[in-house]
Amino acid sequence: MNADPAARAHADPLASWRPGATRSAILGFLDAASERPVDERVAVFDNDGTLWCERPRYAQLEFLLGELRRAADADPSLGARAEYRALLAGDTEAQADLGLPAIAAALVELCAGIDPHEFDRRVAAFVESARHPDTGRPLRDLRYLPMLELLAELRHRQFSVFLVTGGGVEFVRAISGGFYGVAPEAVVGSTVGYDVGRDAAGRPVLRRTRELFGPVVEGEAKVAQIQFQLGRRPILAAGNSPGDTDMLDYAMAAEGPSLALLVDHDDADREYRYVGRAGSFDSEGSLPDIGRARGWTVASMRDDWGEVFATASAPSPWHRSVG
Amino acid sequence: MNADPAARAHADPLASWRPGATRSAILGFLDAASERPVDERVAVFDNDGTLWCERPRYAQLEFLLGELRRAADADPSLGARAEYRALLAGDTEAQADLGLPAIAAALVELCAGIDPHEFDRRVAAFVESARHPDTGRPLRDLRYLPMLELLAELRHRQFSVFLVTGGGVEFVRAISGGFYGVAPEAVVGSTVGYDVGRDAAGRPVLRRTRELFGPVVEGEAKVAQIQFQLGRRPILAAGNSPGDTDMLDYAMAAEGPSLALLVDHDDADREYRYVGRAGSFDSEGSLPDIGRARGWTVASMRDDWGEVFATASAPSPWHRSVG
Repeated sequence: MNADPAARAHADPLASWRPGATRSAILGFLDAASERPVDERVAVFDNDGTLWCERPRYAQLEFLLGELRRAADADPSLGARAEYRALLAGDTEAQADLGLPAIAAALVELCAGIDPHEFDRRVAAFVESARHPDTGRPLRDLRYLPMLELLAELRHRQFSVFLVTGGGVEFVRAISGGFYGVAPEAVVGSTVGYDVGRDAAGRPVLRRTRELFGPVVEGEAKVAQIQFQLGRRPILAAGNSPGDTDMLDYAMAAEGPSLALLVDHDDADREYRYVGRAGSFDSEGSLPDIGRARGWTVASMRDDWGEVFATASAPSPWHRSVG
Repeated sequence: MNADPAARAHADPLASWRPGATRSAILGFLDAASERPVDERVAVFDNDGTLWCERPRYAQLEFLLGELRRAADADPSLGARAEYRALLAGDTEAQADLGLPAIAAALVELCAGIDPHEFDRRVAAFVESARHPDTGRPLRDLRYLPMLELLAELRHRQFSVFLVTGGGVEFVRAISGGFYGVAPEAVVGSTVGYDVGRDAAGRPVLRRTRELFGPVVEGEAKVAQIQFQLGRRPILAAGNSPGDTDMLDYAMAAEGPSLALLVDHDDADREYRYVGRAGSFDSEGSLPDIGRARGWTVASMRDDWGEVFATASAPSPWHRSVG
C-alpha cells in the first residue's frame, strides 16, 4: 500500500466505477487519448444531472426561488406577475402552462441591476446553507463521486476540463471552483447581458440587464458556444439529457479516439429513476438506447457506480491548474 | 551566475525594462499583488500595439487581404464590391470613405462558410510565412520583449493571464499559444457567428456565418466581455489605444493593489511614433496624459524599454499552465 494519497488515487483512479464494459471503455479511451498532443486533450461536461443531482429541482431554480421570496417580501406587488405568482404558490400546473422559457425570463429579470460580484456572493451564501429537499444533504454532497474521480484522472492525464451548462453561467461559476476544481473562465453557459455604467467616482461598474446575452446553451448552442468561448474541440463529452446530444455527437466526430459518456439515471434506490428522451428523436426510443446505437458509452448509475455521492472529497484548488 | 535559466530569469524578471519610475511601479504592484489570494491575481492584455507591433497595418488585416486576393483570383466578380475593390487596389482614400466597420464586415463575409479548424490552419500558414512590410521581420519577432518578460513574471507569481482583443478572436487564438503561452480559451475578442450543421454522415459541423456574434470588443465591450467570458475581475490591465481605456479604468477600480499599464508608442527610431487620443476625451489631450492623470502607469517605449523586440525567446507551452 502506497502511503502517498495522490499515488494511491492514481493506482486506482476510478475506484467507484464497478468493473465492467463502461469502466473498461473509459479506461481504454484514456489510454488511447494519451497518444494525442496535450492541446487536443479537451473534455467538456454538462453539470446538472451529469456531475451532480438535478432532482427534484435544479439547485439554481431553488436559489432563484429564494431570491424571489425575499424580493416579494420587500415588494408584494411582484406577486401580481403570473410567473412569480405561480412560483411563489408552488403551483406546478400554472408553471407548466406558462412554460419554462417564460419562467426563466421572469427570473432573469428579477436579478436585473445587480452587480455580478454581488450575485456571486448571494449564490455562495445559498450554497453554504441550502439542503437537498428530499435527503437533507448539503449541496456539495450531491456531487457524483465517480464523476469527480473521472475529472481528477483527466487532469492527471493533462486534459483541459470544461463545464458546458444550459444553466446560468454565473451560478455555476460560483460553485465550479469549490465543487469541481474548475476555474470560472472554464465554464460555458447561458449568460445574462451586462450594462457598463459608471459609479459616482467615474469608475466602470457592471450591472445585470433584464435579458440573456446569446442563446440558452442547450442542443446545438452547446456546440457553437464551445467554439465561441473556448475555441477548442472536445474529444470527450459527458451529459445526461437531450440538450447534451449535439455536444456528445460533436465529441464523437473528432478525429482519433473520442468518448461520449451518457449518465443514465436508472437508480431509484440511491438517486432517481428517469429516462431522458432525445428531443426530435423521440421515435427512436430512450436516450440511452439512442446513445448506444451511436457508439456512446452509457454509464448506468445502478450498475456501473459502486458509490453515487461524494461526501468528504474535495477537488484540488482550480488555481493550481490554470495559467 | 546561476546556471538555471528559469532561476536566472527570476533573479532579473524584467531585464529589458530600464530602471526608473515605470519599472518600479510594475515591481511594486507585483509585490503588493502577492498578498492577494491566487484567484484574484487576474491580468488582461490587449494584443495589437500592446504585445506586438500593429503598424503599418494590423497583421490580421494583412491575413485577410491575402485571403481576399486568393478569392478574387478564383472569382474576379468579387472585385465589383466597393469594399473589396478598395482593398485590392490599396486605395486607402476609398477605404477611409467606406469606413473600417464596412471594410471589416466585408472581410467577415469573405470567410463565411469556412470551418473554424480550416480557418486556424490558414492563419497558421500565414503566420509562418508573412513578413513585416517595413522591416521584413517574421511576425513572431514583432512581439515586445519587455511585455513577454512581464507575462512570464506574472505567471511565475501565479497570475491568470488573458488576452482581450478588439480583433477577431479566431485569428488571435491561432497565435496566442505559440506567441504568448496563452491558451485559446484565455483569449477574448470579437467573434464571428457559427452555424451548426450536419455532414453527410450526420455529424455536427461548424461553419462561420456572415456576421459577428456579439459586439466588436472595444471600449466598454471589453469590460462586459471579460465578465461574459471569464467571469473574473482583472487587477492588471494593459493596453495602448482608446479602445482599451474602459478596461484600464476597470482594473484600476478593483479593490486593493491594481495596475493600469499603457504602452506609449513614442519611439520613431526603434518602432513607430504615434499618439493615441482617447475617443470622447479628445479635449483632455493625448492618451498618455489622460492616463497619467488617472493614475495609470505609462510605459514609454523610448525611455523605459532597453530592448523592444523579442527574437529567439519563446514562451512556455500554454498547455503546461492551464487546467
